Amino acid sequence: MGVNSGTGVCFTRNPSTGEKRLYGEFLARAQGEDVVSGTRTPQDISSLEDLAPCAYAELLRTASLLEEHYGDMQDIEFTVEEGQLYLLQTRVGKRSPKAALSIAMEMFHSHKIERDELLSRVTPQQIEQMLHRSIDYAQQPSVLTVGLPASPGAACGVIVYSNEAALRLTKNGYKVLLVRPETSPDDIQGIIASQGILTSRGGMTSHAAVVARGMGKPCVCGAEALSFDFTRGTVTIGEHVLKEGDTLSLDGTTGKVFLGEVSLVEPDLSDEFWDLLQIADNESRLKVRANADNPHDAALARRFGAQGIGLCRTEHMFMEAERLPIVQAMIMAEHEDDRNVALQRLLPMQRSDFYGILKAMDGYPVTIRLLDPPLHEFLPSREELKEQVASATTPATRIRAERALRAVDRLHENNPMLGHRGCRLGITTPSIYAMQVEAIALATLDLQREGFSPQPEIMIPLVSHHRELVLMRRLVEDKWQEVLQEQSAQGEVPIGSMIEVPRACLVAQDIAKHADFFSFGTNDLTQTAFGFSRDDAEGKFLPSYIAQDVLEHNPFAVLDVEGVGQLMRMAFTHGREAKPSLKVGICGEHGGEPTSIAFCHELGLDYVSCSPFRVPVARLAAARAKTAEQNKQVDK
Amino acid sequence: MGVNSGTGVCFTRNPSTGEKRLYGEFLARAQGEDVVSGTRTPQDISSLEDLAPCAYAELLRTASLLEEHYGDMQDIEFTVEEGQLYLLQTRVGKRSPKAALSIAMEMFHSHKIERDELLSRVTPQQIEQMLHRSIDYAQQPSVLTVGLPASPGAACGVIVYSNEAALRLTKNGYKVLLVRPETSPDDIQGIIASQGILTSRGGMTSHAAVVARGMGKPCVCGAEALSFDFTRGTVTIGEHVLKEGDTLSLDGTTGKVFLGEVSLVEPDLSDEFWDLLQIADNESRLKVRANADNPHDAALARRFGAQGIGLCRTEHMFMEAERLPIVQAMIMAEHEDDRNVALQRLLPMQRSDFYGILKAMDGYPVTIRLLDPPLHEFLPSREELKEQVASATTPATRIRAERALRAVDRLHENNPMLGHRGCRLGITTPSIYAMQVEAIALATLDLQREGFSPQPEIMIPLVSHHRELVLMRRLVEDKWQEVLQEQSAQGEVPIGSMIEVPRACLVAQDIAKHADFFSFGTNDLTQTAFGFSRDDAEGKFLPSYIAQDVLEHNPFAVLDVEGVGQLMRMAFTHGREAKPSLKVGICGEHGGEPTSIAFCHELGLDYVSCSPFRVPVARLAAARAKTAEQNKQVDK
Repeated sequence: MGVNSGTGVCFTRNPSTGEKRLYGEFLARAQGEDVVSGTRTPQDISSLEDLAPCAYAELLRTASLLEEHYGDMQDIEFTVEEGQLYLLQTRVGKRSPKAALSIAMEMFHSHKIERDELLSRVTPQQIEQMLHRSIDYAQQPSVLTVGLPASPGAACGVIVYSNEAALRLTKNGYKVLLVRPETSPDDIQGIIASQGILTSRGGMTSHAAVVARGMGKPCVCGAEALSFDFTRGTVTIGEHVLKEGDTLSLDGTTGKVFLGEVSLVEPDLSDEFWDLLQIADNESRLKVRANADNPHDAALARRFGAQGIGLCRTEHMFMEAERLPIVQAMIMAEHEDDRNVALQRLLPMQRSDFYGILKAMDGYPVTIRLLDPPLHEFLPSREELKEQVASATTPATRIRAERALRAVDRLHENNPMLGHRGCRLGITTPSIYAMQVEAIALATLDLQREGFSPQPEIMIPLVSHHRELVLMRRLVEDKWQEVLQEQSAQGEVPIGSMIEVPRACLVAQDIAKHADFFSFGTNDLTQTAFGFSRDDAEGKFLPSYIAQDVLEHNPFAVLDVEGVGQLMRMAFTHGREAKPSLKVGICGEHGGEPTSIAFCHELGLDYVSCSPFRVPVARLAAARAKTAEQNKQVDK
Repeated sequence: MGVNSGTGVCFTRNPSTGEKRLYGEFLARAQGEDVVSGTRTPQDISSLEDLAPCAYAELLRTASLLEEHYGDMQDIEFTVEEGQLYLLQTRVGKRSPKAALSIAMEMFHSHKIERDELLSRVTPQQIEQMLHRSIDYAQQPSVLTVGLPASPGAACGVIVYSNEAALRLTKNGYKVLLVRPETSPDDIQGIIASQGILTSRGGMTSHAAVVARGMGKPCVCGAEALSFDFTRGTVTIGEHVLKEGDTLSLDGTTGKVFLGEVSLVEPDLSDEFWDLLQIADNESRLKVRANADNPHDAALARRFGAQGIGLCRTEHMFMEAERLPIVQAMIMAEHEDDRNVALQRLLPMQRSDFYGILKAMDGYPVTIRLLDPPLHEFLPSREELKEQVASATTPATRIRAERALRAVDRLHENNPMLGHRGCRLGITTPSIYAMQVEAIALATLDLQREGFSPQPEIMIPLVSHHRELVLMRRLVEDKWQEVLQEQSAQGEVPIGSMIEVPRACLVAQDIAKHADFFSFGTNDLTQTAFGFSRDDAEGKFLPSYIAQDVLEHNPFAVLDVEGVGQLMRMAFTHGREAKPSLKVGICGEHGGEPTSIAFCHELGLDYVSCSPFRVPVARLAAARAKTAEQNKQVDK
């Protein structure tokens, strides 16, 4: 065997970037498995040109022919003996998300593949991967510990343990990572302020994980090697004792945690990325909206191609630091007058919230859900208040703490998920909803005067009986008209219902008569259909259910078509029968999950709505659902 | 106008007892409204015989004729002028429950009314009223205060504030009333021990009210005049300062509370009462079973005519004072071995529980539900344990309390109703269910050897997916056969599924393939269909819903046929399609409520099951449902 012999593996394109050139390795004087086995280090494919120029030319020609023939990038094994090329195998080559996009778009534009083939070549998962920053593993950073990959993407920052530290450091220009044993709703400020979250307890569906995924923030959960000592203010990981202000990096895609700052690779959203999604939109029947609660998210969603907001949660606005005391005063009011004073203080804030969101989504529908969570979620914990009472130094602070404690006791619930929330609040305390409607109407008028075209839609949460919607519709319409008449304006606002408890699905024909639209809240619908509290189920028994094959998927991640889907089908069918013009969508995490989106397409929904970061994923999934349906029809 | 003039009102029978004789009042020298207006005191009707003997004879004759003609007791207004009788009006007379029963039975036996008319003459509500002891208001006891009439019936006893005092005094032969600001599941021992319950807080659906109604114990709730001072050990009602050991009486039918011991009237369950129910049973298609968790209740249910137990809850057995520490040790076990030690200690106790119940219901089916509530319900509260840790005087007590605190923290749930309970426990911790099955099998064999004919049925709670039942069925069958083979016995046990979450109704055809029976748990099904936590809804927003006419009834009291009933119909129809031999029943409070029973009859269920005290009510309601159906068919 001369020097012009050996074996090689090559791709017809660069599998990382998709660049069209021969890419691979060649090992001189080697046979069959030597290249792939890794026992010897091969040379770049270009070395073949010097060693066996004819064989190289032949390989170039053949590779091009094979790619042309199969209509896709090829992964070719070959051998050269005495300068003669022999092909051993060819197959479709594996590639990075970026390369998949690039290759597919190039082939589409050069008419080698059709639109439906283009849409099948890039997966929603690849789109998702393209959206996150990632650790530059080329720098070979050393791994400190590994937790659960709870929310993808990479982040670096100085570590903080509390909201206060997060806010203080962020104000001073630092990027922070919130590092805690676990998080709770009280930590929302800190989560918003930080680049990523790292916890020592809790699984893929702990509070930190769920919130981080919703916000598109990287998160590593359940990193059990972390040991906190809050009296000393340290967290120990192996031999490293860290304190607030030290720097860590984390990779939410793999669960890895690194000491110090590690270089990150920014997501590279090429023109091809946007072109593909534009092509997808042209194909789709389902529209894609986003769940966004503030102008920033609304603008982000719009950049990602959302055609409206499917769910604007007003509770996050209530949680903001400067408002929470007013919200608490409103809740603790023991007289209607005191409540109204607090509501009047909230009104201009809500007006400006809605102004910002409607402006960011100008021209597109914005579905605003009136206040949903139980009021006790806005109050401090019982334990905290008890301490405040005990440590009060003045009568005034003690009285204030005692009053709050009374409110907490009065509002305490055994099962808050099934408690005094949603439209039940609207029915027992209509003044809160009335204030929100007034704020939406005022913001709409403000924008109209400025020449914008705001499209608010008002959504009533947790309806289980049509008479709940009848009462709430009357409240909304009356307040809306009152505000418009005061300003000599005219117009109506669409009013719809969340469909998120089984009973609403069972009596959808009655509810539809009083609704302009339905929006499926499949998170709550899954909770109530199964009788699973998500918070409890995901931590306590769902892992065991999946391990023992009771359930194939976590039903909060992938829609349970067999059960929950049946309720949705019932609601959709009966709702549309009662009112053919009924607009129907889905909000909630399933709205960004590809197989769930396929089900929504099949059902005939008008739109899906998901977090801004999942909008591109959903746009592709919506288009793929349509082509899959067409292919199925062709097969028939 | 002579002395032989006046007006009167009479009944053809005594409206309190049903005794067949003229009964009423006559007011001499009076006109029209004078008798009923109450401005003058009339004389007994018998006085007419002296005043106007001819008119009296005529009245007797006419009254008898009218009753004969209308086939029911009459309420007659008349006037006598110059000895001449004039009838002013006759109508069907109002009567006490006892009289209703007595009159109807007499007329039935004398062939004046048919069986279906008999069954329509006594209402289930009247049957219920006949079952309770009542205050002897003839003694004119003076009312101390009035609360809510939370559970009917009357009771006297010395007041106690705690489980301990209740048990101590009961052991010493006292009858006690549990008097507390409110009750919680921790108070179950005290509730069981007491004659009745009195609380200062909470409504018709507070813990005390619901538990008391379930047990058929009188209860007055929300008696706000009660003011507790636990440091002094007193409860003040108006000017009366009472302490443990003082005596009160209460009337759960009216909400009245009396100082000291008041005479009570025992329920008088005549032969007619039992005869009527026997006639009802012959008419009914639905069988009536009882919910009973111990031999005493099972025997009571049998005396009340239950044909089996539809729901035997095993959790109440776990709560008994001497067992709770073993149950807690089992729950807090951090290793499987420790858990098994505790389970082996519970096994003989459970064996004797099941022995007693199966014996009391010998020959009838006894549906035993495997453990259902979340395990944390058996542990002390977090606050209590924190105090124990703080006040521990030895390292051993501190370590024990800390261990319990860890278990409480580990098991804490946000929404226990939708949490780690039911078959979810059986799937994650199969050893608990295996122990229970072993105990049932051993008890069954014990009884068979003694010549009894026990009929256990094993029920799996909270099934939402057929694969849960598949796993649990395998566990039960394997353990059952293992126990039988060890004792060289043979036989199978029916295994069924609670149907209590919407998803189970939606996939009933799959579940039915692995079930011998279904039992609707309509309490949980109502909670999940509406998304209402009963504990929270009834206290917080249901009153407002009913006041504003959003809902006509409390859906936990009267089955929501439109929504929950639709799920039941789906489950029943699909379940029977998949398995025609499937036995289907309902357990839970709706099983004792007449309009809900009518729906169960219409659906075609095999049985309803309710608390022992409601069995007679359900027996009559079941028969009335059948006659109502027949009448409807005749009308067509």
